Amino acid sequence: MTTLQTTILESINSPEDVKKLSISQMKILAEEIRQGVINRVNQIGGHLGPDLGITEATIALHYVFNSPVDKFVFDVSHQCYPHKMLTGRKEGFTNPVEHSEISGYFNYTESEHDPFMIGHTSTSVSLATGLAKARDLKGEKYNVIALIGDGSLSGGEAFEGFNNASVLSSNFILIVNDNEMSIAENQGGLYKNLQELRESNGTCSNNWFKTFGFDYVYVENGNDIETLIEAFKKVKDTNHPVVVHIHTLKGKGYEPAVQNKEWGHWTMPGFLDKKPSVSSVPECYETLTKEYILNAVKNDSSVVAVNAATPGVFWWNSDFRNALGKNYTDVGIAEQHACAYVSGLAKNGAKPIWAVHSSFVQRTYDQLSQDLALNNSPATILVFWGGITSADATHLGLFDISLISNIPNIVYLAPTCKEEYLKMLDWSVKQNEHPVVIRVPYFEFVSTGKEDYTDYSKLNKFEVVDKGSKVAIIGAGDFFGLAKEVKEELKSKFNIDATLINPKYLSGLDKELLENLKSDHEIVVTLENGILNGGFGEKISSFYGNSSMKVLNYGATKEFTDRVPMDELLTRYGLKKELICENIKKIL
Amino acid sequence: MTTLQTTILESINSPEDVKKLSISQMKILAEEIRQGVINRVNQIGGHLGPDLGITEATIALHYVFNSPVDKFVFDVSHQCYPHKMLTGRKEGFTNPVEHSEISGYFNYTESEHDPFMIGHTSTSVSLATGLAKARDLKGEKYNVIALIGDGSLSGGEAFEGFNNASVLSSNFILIVNDNEMSIAENQGGLYKNLQELRESNGTCSNNWFKTFGFDYVYVENGNDIETLIEAFKKVKDTNHPVVVHIHTLKGKGYEPAVQNKEWGHWTMPGFLDKKPSVSSVPECYETLTKEYILNAVKNDSSVVAVNAATPGVFWWNSDFRNALGKNYTDVGIAEQHACAYVSGLAKNGAKPIWAVHSSFVQRTYDQLSQDLALNNSPATILVFWGGITSADATHLGLFDISLISNIPNIVYLAPTCKEEYLKMLDWSVKQNEHPVVIRVPYFEFVSTGKEDYTDYSKLNKFEVVDKGSKVAIIGAGDFFGLAKEVKEELKSKFNIDATLINPKYLSGLDKELLENLKSDHEIVVTLENGILNGGFGEKISSFYGNSSMKVLNYGATKEFTDRVPMDELLTRYGLKKELICENIKKIL
Repeated sequence: MTTLQTTILESINSPEDVKKLSISQMKILAEEIRQGVINRVNQIGGHLGPDLGITEATIALHYVFNSPVDKFVFDVSHQCYPHKMLTGRKEGFTNPVEHSEISGYFNYTESEHDPFMIGHTSTSVSLATGLAKARDLKGEKYNVIALIGDGSLSGGEAFEGFNNASVLSSNFILIVNDNEMSIAENQGGLYKNLQELRESNGTCSNNWFKTFGFDYVYVENGNDIETLIEAFKKVKDTNHPVVVHIHTLKGKGYEPAVQNKEWGHWTMPGFLDKKPSVSSVPECYETLTKEYILNAVKNDSSVVAVNAATPGVFWWNSDFRNALGKNYTDVGIAEQHACAYVSGLAKNGAKPIWAVHSSFVQRTYDQLSQDLALNNSPATILVFWGGITSADATHLGLFDISLISNIPNIVYLAPTCKEEYLKMLDWSVKQNEHPVVIRVPYFEFVSTGKEDYTDYSKLNKFEVVDKGSKVAIIGAGDFFGLAKEVKEELKSKFNIDATLINPKYLSGLDKELLENLKSDHEIVVTLENGILNGGFGEKISSFYGNSSMKVLNYGATKEFTDRVPMDELLTRYGLKKELICENIKKIL
Repeated sequence: MTTLQTTILESINSPEDVKKLSISQMKILAEEIRQGVINRVNQIGGHLGPDLGITEATIALHYVFNSPVDKFVFDVSHQCYPHKMLTGRKEGFTNPVEHSEISGYFNYTESEHDPFMIGHTSTSVSLATGLAKARDLKGEKYNVIALIGDGSLSGGEAFEGFNNASVLSSNFILIVNDNEMSIAENQGGLYKNLQELRESNGTCSNNWFKTFGFDYVYVENGNDIETLIEAFKKVKDTNHPVVVHIHTLKGKGYEPAVQNKEWGHWTMPGFLDKKPSVSSVPECYETLTKEYILNAVKNDSSVVAVNAATPGVFWWNSDFRNALGKNYTDVGIAEQHACAYVSGLAKNGAKPIWAVHSSFVQRTYDQLSQDLALNNSPATILVFWGGITSADATHLGLFDISLISNIPNIVYLAPTCKEEYLKMLDWSVKQNEHPVVIRVPYFEFVSTGKEDYTDYSKLNKFEVVDKGSKVAIIGAGDFFGLAKEVKEELKSKFNIDATLINPKYLSGLDKELLENLKSDHEIVVTLENGILNGGFGEKISSFYGNSSMKVLNYGATKEFTDRVPMDELLTRYGLKKELICENIKKIL
């Protein structure tokens, strides 16, 4: 791994240096930035297409405006690499040793040029509206510039931001980076208007942005530095809200990313060296889910697979989408709608299966509560990627148990293996009584080979997998494996035959079973792959509060971790069989 | 209280009966419905203006469409009274004895004409999109009609719904009831477009609805039954999504509600008899908050009071709003934006104070987490109306502790009296380290007269108010009063000198204090005014899990309650000093 050699980029240590460049130097800079993007993504993975597409616009923005006095807010950060390279962080892109030092997201702890830490979508306009209003209240003068992609426009928070930003009576510049794509295709009626605007060079009479009262500038060639500089100069220091709608090419400069924009949105490392291959995919929860859905649709034409703009996360590729046809809905980046939509589907007798990231299910709490749970709509929601990870602080999957299991009426299930998962999924889709959420295991893929005969309609029945005494270990979801390890360690080290329990339900307690444990157990240990606060284990502690049963809760601490290695986190939280056994032994 | 006498309404037992009426009979029916609305609201309070305004449209809808085969979804339910009167529930409006039998909201447990239970805003389009899609998947044919007010359009979920509903390739009818008001004034750029549409009789070239691709019909006189019938007949059985934008008069038929639309939105009982009076208002958390804000703004021009479309809830009347001027922002029904906006304000050095209902703070979990907490923006959020109430299932304030206290970085404070509240508020506004949420007491107003000298920057320091032994009672927020009662009861009945603790913080434990309790206490009792699940008490139980300390957690059970009398709930949850003392005694 050698450092990328550049001529112009190496001289750029801050936006001040960009202002000294000629147009032709900026064009070279653009190419070097692209090399930086490709270099980093090829090494550690990341957002390829969006960053390649926004390169010229970022150079022009830093040429025209004066960050950090002028303030940039980049929506979702999928296009922040060029910005990082121009604001003192180029080594995160040119020098492989430093790639992981620089986050892939806007990060205020990294640079004064990033006012916020940002990783969820559709937030930039609202955040920037706050910056602008504070500026006005304090009587300060500078530009506030929000940048948002066309894909992010479909999120309700962005709309709320548009509605409010448009009535600011002061400087507010909103760059709409229209690359004709979300992560996958854009979804919804709004995108027809964007198309009309592009095709009419911004002149068509019906203009979504102008309906809010925004002033409006259209830039057809959003990858031409000179045109962009001209457009940005025109709006700089404006005294009212203005939208600059720029049309860019996602993936520009790297043809495979242009040709396959969905592939190029977030790309795995090593793509430069890889030959196209159709290697076989090992069995996993993603493949099982797809297979289940395809079969379910064959038997019941009301089954519909739903997702909110991230089909790739679940391996829902275009073959899968096409095979489903009308039985597939991508609602765009719109988790609130997704939740209410599946409630409506279920209420009217259809069988929706909505797959969603743990981190993004957070975007729809009220709809889970009001639209879904209060209405007892029998929809199925699959939460993927929940658990402790080394992810960015913006993409943690730690909070879903606390979020979902405390909502009345929702049945939150935690399978521990393939067989349970499929049984739960099938039960959920076929029943008509409850909203059901299934936490798809993330930590490891397990197949026991034993069919699951559980009747899940008998709610909150925990399974005693192995009956022992003294110590009971309740391992929820994909920490059931750790629970088994703890049991084995207790046996081998201390000759304790612990009881091993698979709770299966995160949303209710098996009070009878817990009560019975009192007769021959002294300690109950709970293990869950999420934050302890508000989670599963605390409920067990509360249950035993009036008894002499000791309870040890294991899970993550309430904190935002940022790219902390997994093993470090497991150690930090004591989630190692040796540490757990030591603690048990201390009490016994 | 006598039953309202009607001539036409008394003959209406289902929508079938509406279809038999002549236009002139329908006009009489409209006036009788208005009497029913006024009658009920005067008896038990409720939504006056919205229901008076939608009367003719509801008659026309039931005349043209065939509920329950055709399906209506009424956004937020603020305008569902006429619908209820036409669908077998007129006694809830004409007969005082039955007023409280019929809920003020769409309620699927009440009638097949209400497909959902609805009370939060901006959900109808998404819910109806689900109904329509299910219909299409099952190959059924009927109309799906969503009705949404202009005020509700500002919520992000509604936008997400519009974006998705507009691309349905089948029947979908969206009635936009434009009465030129939200609860208070409408907010945001979108409303300029609605004005333009009204002023141009729906013909102006820039049309927000058409930008999504909706077909569009405008009805200027939305209170004229014949015109409405004609318009609805035109769109009935349409094969594509169409918006019918009707212009109605909020409060029509009751002049005080027309003249003062904000007053008439939700009106207290007894308004018919009341003379206008300027009675003095007793001191309460609402008046204290207003006073604090007005003073704060005088000293710091960056202080800004923020709310999301419900200023009246906090008594933020027009005098207050005018006095604040630029230091006041109503963002419309847009809690997600509100949260991100205050984060932006705080990040740029301003001092936002956002007041919000417990029930509505649910609408912005992800923004609390990502936009606010992750960015450690020192904004102040005041959560009103949190706690056990006899409210409708759609308006419970039970979930905020579980929702907010489990988010990292947020300091969630629970004052127990006026003096603490003001000290916490002042500390929060002046500090620059943490996002702070304060749970404004709801259960009772208490003033101790003793100044609070606590340094709240020393996080998570519980206060021992009275040191005893054996039993420690931790009474959070406005259940501190109950904790005091329990202490007194223990003394008088069992001669136990219990320790009384005011935790002040809901978001973190005072581990040192809890540890010290072990030396001379056997039981810790926690009391909180919200659901136990995911709440404050469970964390205390978990803390003591490895010790011999007994813990009893008191609070509400995880359930949606619907208009259950307060005292019944307190008994159900064991929240009575006698019951609590008995349980303590059982363990000792």
